[in-house]
Amino acid sequence: MIENRVELTPRQISDLGLIVDGRISTSQSALDQHGHDESAFPSSPPSAVVIAASTEEVSEILQYCNSEAIPVVAFGAGTSLEGHVVPLFGGISLDLSSMNRVLEVRPDDLLARVQAGVHRIALNEKLANDGLFFTVDPGADATLGGMAATGAAGTTTVRYGSMRENVLAMTAVLASGEIIHTGRNTRKLSAGYDLTRLLVGSEGTLAVITELSLRVFGIPEKMAAATVRFSSMSEGVQAATEIVKAGISIARCEFLDAKCIRNLNAYDSMSLTELPTLFFEFHGTPRSVEEDALAVQEIVADFGGTEFEWTSDEGERRKLWRARHNAHWAAVAAHPGKKSVSTDMAVPLSKLAKAVALADEMLAAHEFTHSILGHVADGNFHCQIITDPNNPDELVNIRRLVHEMTLEIIAMGGTCTGEHGIGAGKIDALEVEASDSLKVMRRIKDALDPKGILNPGKIFAAKTNRT
Amino acid sequence: MIENRVELTPRQISDLGLIVDGRISTSQSALDQHGHDESAFPSSPPSAVVIAASTEEVSEILQYCNSEAIPVVAFGAGTSLEGHVVPLFGGISLDLSSMNRVLEVRPDDLLARVQAGVHRIALNEKLANDGLFFTVDPGADATLGGMAATGAAGTTTVRYGSMRENVLAMTAVLASGEIIHTGRNTRKLSAGYDLTRLLVGSEGTLAVITELSLRVFGIPEKMAAATVRFSSMSEGVQAATEIVKAGISIARCEFLDAKCIRNLNAYDSMSLTELPTLFFEFHGTPRSVEEDALAVQEIVADFGGTEFEWTSDEGERRKLWRARHNAHWAAVAAHPGKKSVSTDMAVPLSKLAKAVALADEMLAAHEFTHSILGHVADGNFHCQIITDPNNPDELVNIRRLVHEMTLEIIAMGGTCTGEHGIGAGKIDALEVEASDSLKVMRRIKDALDPKGILNPGKIFAAKTNRT
Repeated sequence: MIENRVELTPRQISDLGLIVDGRISTSQSALDQHGHDESAFPSSPPSAVVIAASTEEVSEILQYCNSEAIPVVAFGAGTSLEGHVVPLFGGISLDLSSMNRVLEVRPDDLLARVQAGVHRIALNEKLANDGLFFTVDPGADATLGGMAATGAAGTTTVRYGSMRENVLAMTAVLASGEIIHTGRNTRKLSAGYDLTRLLVGSEGTLAVITELSLRVFGIPEKMAAATVRFSSMSEGVQAATEIVKAGISIARCEFLDAKCIRNLNAYDSMSLTELPTLFFEFHGTPRSVEEDALAVQEIVADFGGTEFEWTSDEGERRKLWRARHNAHWAAVAAHPGKKSVSTDMAVPLSKLAKAVALADEMLAAHEFTHSILGHVADGNFHCQIITDPNNPDELVNIRRLVHEMTLEIIAMGGTCTGEHGIGAGKIDALEVEASDSLKVMRRIKDALDPKGILNPGKIFAAKTNRT
Repeated sequence: MIENRVELTPRQISDLGLIVDGRISTSQSALDQHGHDESAFPSSPPSAVVIAASTEEVSEILQYCNSEAIPVVAFGAGTSLEGHVVPLFGGISLDLSSMNRVLEVRPDDLLARVQAGVHRIALNEKLANDGLFFTVDPGADATLGGMAATGAAGTTTVRYGSMRENVLAMTAVLASGEIIHTGRNTRKLSAGYDLTRLLVGSEGTLAVITELSLRVFGIPEKMAAATVRFSSMSEGVQAATEIVKAGISIARCEFLDAKCIRNLNAYDSMSLTELPTLFFEFHGTPRSVEEDALAVQEIVADFGGTEFEWTSDEGERRKLWRARHNAHWAAVAAHPGKKSVSTDMAVPLSKLAKAVALADEMLAAHEFTHSILGHVADGNFHCQIITDPNNPDELVNIRRLVHEMTLEIIAMGGTCTGEHGIGAGKIDALEVEASDSLKVMRRIKDALDPKGILNPGKIFAAKTNRT
């Protein structure tokens, strides 16, 4: 097992360089760029950056690294909020961003095949030519490979599902270098173990994903957005859960607290009322969209919702959601020089209002600057906690408080992570939450990556990153 | 590994009897009942039937069977169409049908917790009290544990997903007797490997599922059904795929050929026109349901659909779908003394019309009595092929032809099974289809069930059931 930081020898660098036609770098800028992501985790650079151009190259690289016990961390866009791409044990950062071809768009099958390094916005630009879109939309313009590896979700998950529901098939490379093809390009599949869904969310610890078949949807005939304000956070959250229970067809339903709105106004030159707000989106026919919006309007009124504003103007709708997607950077930008720690808890729907209130109170009691937003129709919410990277003690204190909060959430039947994954920061929480099933995960890890070269120190504790 | 049929010794029967308070039987009727399912596979009785009453008992039984290398086949309702519950290697049939309690219905969380032996119809009767329903509806009144183990789907999968999307969490027992809890009662989860979805569809080969948390939905405000006839099978199938591509919100969309309709008429005293037919269902508000039905009506007209009939009468709607759910038994009943072999191929949507035509031609060329029906909006269809159980050569010939057909389907990007699973009859097909990923499935199997006691001879080839 990998237990200490691995520095590549000149021979290893030369050997790897031969596999990838010299696309290997040990320059400071390359190492810096691949040593961190969007999280507040301190940087830890790889020993070298290797740029792969094909599945076959990835296979040769892994075969070599496995034989030499070199850690391998796959890298796409570096937008993880959980330290996924940080090479805690050195070795190589395996950069897949050059594998950025949309291989095939098949409108008649409602699917697209892409290389792992394709970014989600680029894919959607291409799909739009055929009147199609890929639904999963995390805040960042992540790569599809990274989104699959972390089991990403987004604002439309309530309607269209997360990566778990939208990856049909994959090409992936095991630690040994063996290339495997999981799944089929069919909408239904029951042929043996669901390896696609095992690899989705495995955070680069079981295999390196190189190609994906994705389920895509036709762009709805009509899309409309709405916003509504509440005097308290709790009322907004309760209204959202009531809407879900009523079975109203919503395509998006996002909660933002007053501080989030203030940050968005500043970052995106918006002029939204600075109160707790729900953002909605409706997809369908002109009549069904109108009907769904009316049904929502009735329910939010019961919870004191005011200023219900509705737009089917495409520019307005896009502007609103672009602002929502920028929430993370808006929070960071509001505090120059600082970073944001994002929590990602999810609870059963009926516990959401209580969970959000609890989080807010605990953070306020410790006087941490924070804002709260969430995919509330799915019971999933984020606290964005601002921290000074020059004050590492503060980060330690924040992580301690978040862990306490997480234990409360787990005790009420929730999870430490709804969509960001475990990464390097929630290993202790997973040990509590998964308890008796963690040993099964470990057995699968050992069966597929016996030397532990794939993303060591993520999901599972490694000796040297234990606190 | 288990390689030969295992007969229990008197000591083993006595030991197991002590674990379950005497709920063990070797009577001929119990062995017969647990030796077959709804498939055409020849019966192979267990050596004993053990009735488990709790997760803890299942744990003790498995611990014992693992130490004694006794094969264990979990048994629920015995409704598999793929020989899943047939104890090919003797040992015990572990009957979970007494574990039939609905543990909890949580309307505010839109979930229900059940023991594995609860039947789907009983669950829905209970859920109706709270205005809720569980969506997955295979033809048979299967148990939820069996449905999870086989990754079952049904007529509403196009709208609500299969068991893969609707099982949130599980209690399961490993071959070693270790009890594990997978998943959480949350709508989103990204905490480590997705073990829930690994066990769903693992066909009793990785663990015995004892409890499940299920996602449930509110009964829609309005439900309406429609039927429409076509002069040819191909037109009906093409119309269905066009409706999916148009993004119309359909809750059900089923194709039945003329022979299916004839069988239903006889079996359920219906008087449907005996032509290739699409059955639809729409869920939503009164307005949206009407709008969706109108949109469908326009498209089917383009493909020569006639006699478009629509009903929102609850009795009529139920009668129609009860008939559809009886299709398997209607086919068998039309041929007294015979059995039905059901295929379960699925293809990418654009290949469906071609795949169905190919299957029909191949079966017709060999003069096998057959009918075709399918979950066509998901690209999944079944050929019901009638066979005489007293003519085993015929069954061999049918299986040979189906395998040839399957190879063609796999070559066009399809799968040998969309929802029934591999069981005992599609092992050769899986070896072709999964090819390079089968070894990963095998490694996971070996890591979790090193002695191979769980449902030997299913999914993976075992020496003695190789043909």
